[in-house]
Amino acid sequence: MRILFLGDIVGEPGRKAVIGRISSLKRELEVDFIIANGENSAAGRGITPKISIQLLRSGIAVLTTGDHIWDQKEIVEYLPTEPRLLRPLNYEEGTPGQGSVVLETAKGKVAVINAQGRTFMNPPLENPFTRVEDEVARLREEEDVKVVFVDFHAETTSESIAMGHHLDGKVSAVVGTHTHVQTADEKILPKGTAHLTDAGMCGPDHSILGRNVESVVWRFKTGMPTRFPVAKGQVRLCGVVVDVDEETGMARSIERYNELLDLGQ
Amino acid sequence: MRILFLGDIVGEPGRKAVIGRISSLKRELEVDFIIANGENSAAGRGITPKISIQLLRSGIAVLTTGDHIWDQKEIVEYLPTEPRLLRPLNYEEGTPGQGSVVLETAKGKVAVINAQGRTFMNPPLENPFTRVEDEVARLREEEDVKVVFVDFHAETTSESIAMGHHLDGKVSAVVGTHTHVQTADEKILPKGTAHLTDAGMCGPDHSILGRNVESVVWRFKTGMPTRFPVAKGQVRLCGVVVDVDEETGMARSIERYNELLDLGQ
Amino acid sequence: MRILFLGDIVGEPGRKAVIGRISSLKRELEVDFIIANGENSAAGRGITPKISIQLLRSGIAVLTTGDHIWDQKEIVEYLPTEPRLLRPLNYEEGTPGQGSVVLETAKGKVAVINAQGRTFMNPPLENPFTRVEDEVARLREEEDVKVVFVDFHAETTSESIAMGHHLDGKVSAVVGTHTHVQTADEKILPKGTAHLTDAGMCGPDHSILGRNVESVVWRFKTGMPTRFPVAKGQVRLCGVVVDVDEETGMARSIERYNELLDLGQ
Amino acid sequence: MRILFLGDIVGEPGRKAVIGRISSLKRELEVDFIIANGENSAAGRGITPKISIQLLRSGIAVLTTGDHIWDQKEIVEYLPTEPRLLRPLNYEEGTPGQGSVVLETAKGKVAVINAQGRTFMNPPLENPFTRVEDEVARLREEEDVKVVFVDFHAETTSESIAMGHHLDGKVSAVVGTHTHVQTADEKILPKGTAHLTDAGMCGPDHSILGRNVESVVWRFKTGMPTRFPVAKGQVRLCGVVVDVDEETGMARSIERYNELLDLGQ
Ligand SMILES: [Fe+2]
Ligand SMILES: [Fe+2]
Ligand SMILES: [Fe+2]
Ligand SMILES: [Fe+2]
Ligand SMILES: [Fe+2]
Ligand SMILES: [Fe+2]
Ligand SMILES: [Fe+2]
Ligand SMILES: [Fe+2]
Repeated sequence: MRILFLGDIVGEPGRKAVIGRISSLKRELEVDFIIANGENSAAGRGITPKISIQLLRSGIAVLTTGDHIWDQKEIVEYLPTEPRLLRPLNYEEGTPGQGSVVLETAKGKVAVINAQGRTFMNPPLENPFTRVEDEVARLREEEDVKVVFVDFHAETTSESIAMGHHLDGKVSAVVGTHTHVQTADEKILPKGTAHLTDAGMCGPDHSILGRNVESVVWRFKTGMPTRFPVAKGQVRLCGVVVDVDEETGMARSIERYNELLDLGQ
Repeated sequence: MRILFLGDIVGEPGRKAVIGRISSLKRELEVDFIIANGENSAAGRGITPKISIQLLRSGIAVLTTGDHIWDQKEIVEYLPTEPRLLRPLNYEEGTPGQGSVVLETAKGKVAVINAQGRTFMNPPLENPFTRVEDEVARLREEEDVKVVFVDFHAETTSESIAMGHHLDGKVSAVVGTHTHVQTADEKILPKGTAHLTDAGMCGPDHSILGRNVESVVWRFKTGMPTRFPVAKGQVRLCGVVVDVDEETGMARSIERYNELLDLGQ
Repeated sequence: MRILFLGDIVGEPGRKAVIGRISSLKRELEVDFIIANGENSAAGRGITPKISIQLLRSGIAVLTTGDHIWDQKEIVEYLPTEPRLLRPLNYEEGTPGQGSVVLETAKGKVAVINAQGRTFMNPPLENPFTRVEDEVARLREEEDVKVVFVDFHAETTSESIAMGHHLDGKVSAVVGTHTHVQTADEKILPKGTAHLTDAGMCGPDHSILGRNVESVVWRFKTGMPTRFPVAKGQVRLCGVVVDVDEETGMARSIERYNELLDLGQ
Repeated sequence: MRILFLGDIVGEPGRKAVIGRISSLKRELEVDFIIANGENSAAGRGITPKISIQLLRSGIAVLTTGDHIWDQKEIVEYLPTEPRLLRPLNYEEGTPGQGSVVLETAKGKVAVINAQGRTFMNPPLENPFTRVEDEVARLREEEDVKVVFVDFHAETTSESIAMGHHLDGKVSAVVGTHTHVQTADEKILPKGTAHLTDAGMCGPDHSILGRNVESVVWRFKTGMPTRFPVAKGQVRLCGVVVDVDEETGMARSIERYNELLDLGQ
């Protein structure tokens, strides 16, 4: 089974580009299942129910998120109604929404888990290493699922890579999000889990993490606050394609996907 | 002029691999000038005078560093004696050592600047955006140098990319270090400056930032302290090659370099 | 000369209480000069021109601030017009406003300096230790001022106490703000400078740093965002009275001021 | 029942002063039970088995700790053998040692709980708000204990005060440690729990958090590393006395204790 994962979709430019490209992309990359991180899809801050519906209708099977999950207030009530929109798993029990989902596909069950790191991340959450490990064990036992994809939303490379090794041999893939910059370290770890430190983002190419260049530079230079509008212009889509052996749940290959869309698209 | 920059050299495995490969690499990549970040070359923590001498003798023209600069005590006295070993520029005036150097080459002068970011970095330093900008202006005026290479040692992708845009059109290249993971976002910015968010590291491939996998995973899982020995096994070299137009100082091309060395090497 | 310093004024409750009590307080405490930190006076977030005018009219000679200085947009244009409203000194040159002021009083000149710490503080600013030291030297030389009061806005006790010792013998008093909790460690340092790690706040007593108790507790418990309205009920005023020898500029005494106002006030 | 809590004991000066003063202090303050935070008792870094034994023999009933718990390696094996030496409760299950203890006294059972905050604290631990709440419920039910004292080791005033309110009416007292500076905000919260944001430390008075003044100031000024030896000279003891109604478990009074010992002591 071939899974496409797309990194953080940023604002309207990111959304439009993903929705416009997704059908042809599915065909060209010959993927069976598409996951995308939508934590910045609403003007760069969070996700609304409406946008969640649009993205899921366009062909994305599961939406993951991260530290921006609560940015749009309506999402608190919406999360429990849409099992295909995930929030980080490692919140306390009782938090609205869920951190994992199992879906049936033509090629068997697929589980998606979303968790958030703790180094330089806000708010402080529960231990993602033990929580994800327990959830994987539960899913394998209760749901008898082999294919497990983990979006680990983390700031530092060390925490992201540590999660990969921690889950090596236990899940199909661990892919990082949150830094909005794709890393070039894709590999199959020794026990068969595919890993990429960060998938990158789907958003304006001439930008700083999807935001207007001048605003962010000015902020760093002066220390004074300013607005950070979503940038304009050509969109770059970033993600990763993982080919998983449905029998073992281990990865056969991992390839980065990184495309600068034509202005016409 | 073609410049090769190698990311953070980690421990003995990194050092040996770089020293063993550097001559052939210079030939194969047809580079004129080699810079490397050496902040982790002494057992992962800092750099010693002896190691600095070894690396500079092997063919590296300039060594940059970062937050680990002071890890080895002897370096405080050594820094002022070796202009080709840099510490971050944005320390207060009066700090031992220097943050930039200008060298003569067969193809003209080359300036190298080393600066450190402030987001999630320790210790807190002075504003790298204004300091580097001032230093570039000074070098261009006083030294009449066109080719300027900046190693910006930073934790977050936003600060690293912001520095690239901040210096766009003013320097030849801005390349990040510190995260030890190579990013896949190399590009020539609109005004001619080459940029890569992080060059990656030169160190053991089966590792977490060059350190032993089990130790780091255990630390994240338990929160308890442990030693983090430099890992063993095959070494991966990471860096970037920038081709600079000596007349304008602007970049003609930027290509990532990423090589897993054979065990025999 | 006796100087009263009042800690962070929080919201309308803090403002009203300070304005209502200030005349009687001046008499009772027999103070010659009143300074207050106003960074949270506008609904807990920043300060407006209007509030600045009200507070200065009520009898406060100088208003200091801190990391919340830019929360209200209008303040950017207003700062340069009101020399008695300070922002942290250790911003880059060219930043609107000023970090120090010298005023004439019946008992001679008084200088007030406002600086911001860097540990766990945002945004990252320039070195407050060297900047304040330089400013003190400049004020003593150019303005021939003996009495110098420093509000050091900092998160950690270590940075706050270090600043006190750093300036010991060079200024009359170093008093911390920002944590909103008064510390009990007032003392005259060996060379004559009065020091208190934090002055505390002027705001609702049944609160968490001036904010509604239930909101803040819920945030810590759940990790989910919420609004943090300014709390209601009885107000506590916190600050410190320093008696300075005008001849030497050194402190004769330092006493904490801490008063829970009656509901009627 | 009157309980004396002493803040972080720092190094040999702190240890000697506490041990030398404890008997007379117990008499003078008429306390029935003494708790002390020992996380810095071994040369400022952690605690050894030997020091733990000395302090417990001197008359301290329970030793709490914090983020420095693991600084001395031998403590990992020792912790499970000494139930009166606590580590923060909110580590994952399976961590050596325990975060609470119940002791029998002439006036009935006393429970002590030790937890660690998460804001600006390392390592990241599990939610102290839910963990402590659960532990209090367990202790009340399983152990039928009324008197419960909580040492909450935290950096920020907001987290410390939030914990006080969170446990108000559920425990006898919540006292903060870690900042090494005593706060002046002692109070009985509305439902009967005594609270003090930070108890302060037991260590050298002319110091920065117990460390040598010049070293710490130099570090802040230069950003360069140095050793931070424990300071010398007169010792100040800081803590708090809480009078608890054994029937209800609620506090009758809370008074700060703060004494500068004579040099002869
Ligand atoms: Fe994101
Ligand atoms: Fe994020
Ligand atoms: Fe490094
Ligand atoms: Fe580094
Ligand atoms: Fe404040
Ligand atoms: Fe503040
Ligand atoms: Fe401590
Ligand atoms: Fe501590």
